[in-house]
Amino acid sequence: LFFPSRPCCIEALLAEAAEPGTPARPCPCPLPSGDTALSRLVRRLLSARRSLDLCLFSFSCPQLARAVQLLHRRGVRVRLVTDSQYMGLHGSQIGRLRHAGIQVRHDQHSGYMHHKFAIVDRRMLITGSLNWTTQAIQSNRENVLVVEDAEYVKAFLDEFERIWEEYNPTNYSFF
Amino acid sequence: LFFPSRPCCIEALLAEAAEPGTPARPCPCPLPSGDTALSRLVRRLLSARRSLDLCLFSFSCPQLARAVQLLHRRGVRVRLVTDSQYMGLHGSQIGRLRHAGIQVRHDQHSGYMHHKFAIVDRRMLITGSLNWTTQAIQSNRENVLVVEDAEYVKAFLDEFERIWEEYNPTNYSFF
Repeated sequence: LFFPSRPCCIEALLAEAAEPGTPARPCPCPLPSGDTALSRLVRRLLSARRSLDLCLFSFSCPQLARAVQLLHRRGVRVRLVTDSQYMGLHGSQIGRLRHAGIQVRHDQHSGYMHHKFAIVDRRMLITGSLNWTTQAIQSNRENVLVVEDAEYVKAFLDEFERIWEEYNPTNYSFF
Repeated sequence: LFFPSRPCCIEALLAEAAEPGTPARPCPCPLPSGDTALSRLVRRLLSARRSLDLCLFSFSCPQLARAVQLLHRRGVRVRLVTDSQYMGLHGSQIGRLRHAGIQVRHDQHSGYMHHKFAIVDRRMLITGSLNWTTQAIQSNRENVLVVEDAEYVKAFLDEFERIWEEYNPTNYSFF
């Protein structure tokens, strides 16, 4: 998938994911709801049935946060690793996701946790240059690869588990 | 490939690429020359024989710039697309590469040219979260995928050609 993506409405996608089979009420917003790089990304995420592992430097896009929250509500096990310096920036969605009960861990280093990948159901890797921000989605030249090759998925899953354990709050130091 | 990478000396790799077969003189620097994520990345780049297409948001790592310059001197056709706001930052290697005669093009937008990929000989795609900066290589959590699957390579080659043409200086506006 290549970005920038035209702005688009993803209400129909979210409604269908929340209550499959129920016809979605038309959204009153003026945005088109066509097929865009963003809608394709959201569709991939919403295909999660069991787990969603997120490793994201910067996460401020409200539309993607709603998709993640919906999966969490639907019983998908969501884990999120992020960067300690970027998670507190204005517009960050991390607080909202934590508030919703999603497990979040972050680094304690001066170096950045600069990954931008997601793993759906331990079988689909979504990775690239794209930070999950509206600016990146709508204004930047970006790429996102969707890979189901087991070799790549396993390498990124292993990296996720390493980071998840390394950033376990029981390891935090306060001195 | 996952980063951060231990700091390492790539002089032996560069010397071998510059004059294949000639035994490299030992480098007096104190860095180890072992197998690291950085040395693997450099090895992939130095495998180029005909072309190297670079699409890089930020490029300030002198070691990677030396590898690119060496390929250019060896007759490999190097093309580089970068971001107009980041190419002038302190430590950027873009000026040096232009000075060496390498073709560079950049955007004219407020949105970022945020890709970080390289295509070797139109057959190997190197892409991920890694900006080509020493900070990212040595301090950040980063990933780089090396993909030879024709479908992915073609998609990124097409994106490169689109951007290369869009950023042609004959299209620049000065008003």
